Amino acid sequence: MIPESAREVLTSGLLGHLATIDPDGRPQVTCAWIGVEDDEIVIATMPDQRKLRNIRRDPRVTLSVETSNLNPHGLTEYLVVYGRARVTEGGAPELLQQLAYTYIGPGVKFPPMPNPPPGFVTRITAERFGGIGPWAER
Amino acid sequence: MIPESAREVLTSGLLGHLATIDPDGRPQVTCAWIGVEDDEIVIATMPDQRKLRNIRRDPRVTLSVETSNLNPHGLTEYLVVYGRARVTEGGAPELLQQLAYTYIGPGVKFPPMPNPPPGFVTRITAERFGGIGPWAER
Repeated sequence: MIPESAREVLTSGLLGHLATIDPDGRPQVTCAWIGVEDDEIVIATMPDQRKLRNIRRDPRVTLSVETSNLNPHGLTEYLVVYGRARVTEGGAPELLQQLAYTYIGPGVKFPPMPNPPPGFVTRITAERFGGIGPWAER
Repeated sequence: MIPESAREVLTSGLLGHLATIDPDGRPQVTCAWIGVEDDEIVIATMPDQRKLRNIRRDPRVTLSVETSNLNPHGLTEYLVVYGRARVTEGGAPELLQQLAYTYIGPGVKFPPMPNPPPGFVTRITAERFGGIGPWAER
């Protein structure tokens, strides 16, 4: 279960930094729009990117999100989610359209092209929460 | 060499998301203040944290920094640095004080305690630049 404080961060239009594992073991990082569906974190991708190939080979991912809140010690609060991801086919344009209302604004048409490819949706099951904030496990 | 566009991002008071490699191969991520010294990216740490133990075992790190700039397609520009890190002993309070002028403001005293421990400075040599922005290699 995603705690309410973490869910708030994950659904407020903040960028997710998604770290996957390259074939040689090095973390590969891309930033993406994020959302939550059925207690999973969701990310839409149109082309079959390197991060998707990484996830198919090793599902362990780490997602970090910085907020604009300061904790009582004056440090920026940020969320880190350690989880497992799976890549499902299709649904990317629909998810991007939904996220665009949060990330760009109401009334926007996204993706802007007429017949976008079905793409991929990555679904992350959270296993552990870290970072600085009320969600961080000690 | 760090390209000028990347150096600007690395020295403007933006948070760095530092991914190191846990013993089991999973990316471990913490956010930190960052600076540039002698063409290396520097991060100060007071206690001997997990990320430092990870770096001593495997020096490959990935650092990501999001900006508030949008590219011509309306996407948020962000910098990803793939590099190698080394941990040096001491110098953390001095570096934190210097970074605090950028991250908190002029005239601040940081760390706030009177006799801080020497801590550690992590120095990252950049090997490759990714993300979205003029620094990204194609």
